[in-house]
Amino acid sequence: MTTACPFCAGARPAPDHRIGDLGVTEAYLHDDQFFPGWVVLKLKRHATELFELDAEERGRMMDEVARIAAALHTLFAPRKINYECLGNQIAHMHWHVVPRLPDDPAPRDAVWTVAHTPVRLAPAERAERIASILAQLSR
Amino acid sequence: MTTACPFCAGARPAPDHRIGDLGVTEAYLHDDQFFPGWVVLKLKRHATELFELDAEERGRMMDEVARIAAALHTLFAPRKINYECLGNQIAHMHWHVVPRLPDDPAPRDAVWTVAHTPVRLAPAERAERIASILAQLSR
Repeated sequence: MTTACPFCAGARPAPDHRIGDLGVTEAYLHDDQFFPGWVVLKLKRHATELFELDAEERGRMMDEVARIAAALHTLFAPRKINYECLGNQIAHMHWHVVPRLPDDPAPRDAVWTVAHTPVRLAPAERAERIASILAQLSR
Repeated sequence: MTTACPFCAGARPAPDHRIGDLGVTEAYLHDDQFFPGWVVLKLKRHATELFELDAEERGRMMDEVARIAAALHTLFAPRKINYECLGNQIAHMHWHVVPRLPDDPAPRDAVWTVAHTPVRLAPAERAERIASILAQLSR
């Protein structure tokens, strides 16, 4: 834990977007659902680069990324899923898991290049989406 | 292997950019070195999503991504490394491992958003960069 890290402090991702604890990571619904089903997986402990984790911890983390991806694949039937660990803005290790749906506006491009108005779900709709992901994870 | 896949056919990434065989993956220098040290790791067999691999194969793949990242970290001293498995254009599983150097023109942004003229290394310079990565991997 570092005191300057908003992920360690629990301020980010938004606590009311939390899906659940997967083991070494916690899953959150991304606050912009323009790409439906976008989930962020945060490593619970502070680390920045893949080589800071030993093989076992890294394997567990990637198993959890894969588990979320499988759930999103069943729920959203994407043509592809994107997996990204960047850390340019917040270096605390986290994964963007982004289903790219058949009606994606720019299917050949990375999501970061797609200009759009962020889609903020109303609380009830957000809770429903979180519940559907949780239900799929428990199947 | 699928016959329509340019990665399975060996056409991409560019064969003359090959760094070496790491185990379940092969490493290539990305053909645009605007971000110096950008490496692409291709899974040798055809797969598209993380959950198609069992935990052991996925773990080996991520160990190889981490091994390349550690070598690039030593060679290029980046402030952060980006790890991305997208597959929007070629679904065959591959990882972009991108050192973001201290003089990066857009350190807070994903590389895909950074407009630039691609940097194609001359053959001798490319061979030198590949050799330096190989040497670091063997240390």
